Amino acid sequence: MSMVCRLFKSFSSRGLAASPKSGAGFRSSWNALPRQPHISALYSELHHQSVAQPNGFIFRQLFEKVSSTYTYLLADAQNKEAVIIDPVIDEVNRDVKLIEELGLKLLYAANTHCHADHVTGTGLLKKILTGCRSVIAKDSGALADIYIQEGDTINFGEFYLEARSTPGHTDGCLTYVLNDRSMAFTGDALLIRGCGRTDFQQGCPKTLYNSVYGKIFTLPADCLLYPAHDYTGQTVTTVEEERKLNRRFTKPLAEFIELMNNLNLPKPAQIDVAVPANIRCGIQDDPIALGPRT
Amino acid sequence: MSMVCRLFKSFSSRGLAASPKSGAGFRSSWNALPRQPHISALYSELHHQSVAQPNGFIFRQLFEKVSSTYTYLLADAQNKEAVIIDPVIDEVNRDVKLIEELGLKLLYAANTHCHADHVTGTGLLKKILTGCRSVIAKDSGALADIYIQEGDTINFGEFYLEARSTPGHTDGCLTYVLNDRSMAFTGDALLIRGCGRTDFQQGCPKTLYNSVYGKIFTLPADCLLYPAHDYTGQTVTTVEEERKLNRRFTKPLAEFIELMNNLNLPKPAQIDVAVPANIRCGIQDDPIALGPRT
Repeated sequence: MSMVCRLFKSFSSRGLAASPKSGAGFRSSWNALPRQPHISALYSELHHQSVAQPNGFIFRQLFEKVSSTYTYLLADAQNKEAVIIDPVIDEVNRDVKLIEELGLKLLYAANTHCHADHVTGTGLLKKILTGCRSVIAKDSGALADIYIQEGDTINFGEFYLEARSTPGHTDGCLTYVLNDRSMAFTGDALLIRGCGRTDFQQGCPKTLYNSVYGKIFTLPADCLLYPAHDYTGQTVTTVEEERKLNRRFTKPLAEFIELMNNLNLPKPAQIDVAVPANIRCGIQDDPIALGPRT
Repeated sequence: MSMVCRLFKSFSSRGLAASPKSGAGFRSSWNALPRQPHISALYSELHHQSVAQPNGFIFRQLFEKVSSTYTYLLADAQNKEAVIIDPVIDEVNRDVKLIEELGLKLLYAANTHCHADHVTGTGLLKKILTGCRSVIAKDSGALADIYIQEGDTINFGEFYLEARSTPGHTDGCLTYVLNDRSMAFTGDALLIRGCGRTDFQQGCPKTLYNSVYGKIFTLPADCLLYPAHDYTGQTVTTVEEERKLNRRFTKPLAEFIELMNNLNLPKPAQIDVAVPANIRCGIQDDPIALGPRT
């Protein structure tokens, strides 16, 4: 499991070779664009050339509508090693199809924590994609093939995710940070302008506040933050934005605690199904699908 | 309106300064991560420093659940000039809030075409954000402040979008391509593994096929393609993927035409409201909100 990360390949290696052109405003007579080619020749050419993936880093954000959950697929385009973060069981077929279409080898299905609002797709993915191993924090209390903790890395090709322990929503919450710290996957610790609730599953407002300030707000200001959920159709934020605009974390600690202790939210609709299932990797009735405890 | 595009600022200017580290596998003892700082000091520091946006390019993909429409916000982080593509009237408040939070100056609200499945937010955005001008293709038949066509550019800060004429779903469909050709916004001309229908609003399968092959598949293989809709929770694709995997455009022209002419889809739920509204910039009852025809 110890894979050496070679030199990090910048995302900028793709697609930025075109030289800049002067913007000539609307109704320009700029003629540099390719004009209509001979279509039948192009069709023939495209369907006989070899399949070439883009160089560098493959990244896909995927959405599950019922629980408004985001799943993330990350891969090295060169050797096709991939990691999926927070898959949802209802969308496993979609995710497997995409993984296969892109020719990826899914090494790990990692959860940010033991979710209460949806059933993880981890167990089912392991059944379908041989060689995939489940990953979660030991403190989550959930089964997985591999337990990780603060400072551990999940390696795929030339890239890796570093795990930062960000408890407070649950005890086992991890934030996964890409090796160049240009993006991080915050689970429910930090949502866009908000955060996960702290009134069940070991939730603790003070712990969450310290996690976000200590482990997420210390990332670079322009680090892109990808949450586990958004209920407004937004997809991403940055450290800088949340430092300035998060309506909860811009409050001092005492006010934050007061706020979080008085949200009076209804019980999550799926919690009684989701938590027991997620403790067993998302599949309750099939012990074969469960990986060994390491 | 003629703004000179200065040297294109690579996306890679942000967030890639961290030197690579060797991945040491799971359970590493790598101690390079920042440890828990003194929280109260960090809180104080963050809330007294100046607001600094990330350098370079700001990009946000936004989702509207009812019609599964994607809206895109693009901006120059330096001078804050911004463009929004395909805003939805129901989400204008969210979009305005985000634009204001980021301190952006919205120059243009551009539609890829005259939509049949939702009412555009263009007219309402113009009412709320002074100085914003609506943009659409002249062939769309819809009102707008500015009409553009093949080869025209929409400039914002150091960036611009080039317009490519991609009719076939409707006569006035445009694909907007970022100046470095790293990303393109295809409207309904090309969806992820699919395309917009061609059975109303001047739809023509042959025209659409030629548009996609001539104007989209000729972009760089790793150009990211952002569609106007996705109904499966996917957010982005690439030219390479669609060349190889699009279940419609991998067919020869004759089969594509046969397929598109026999989809037998139901009439779009919102078409009788959406098209008349979109012809008038999304707001039917308030002529003040309509821009002059240029």
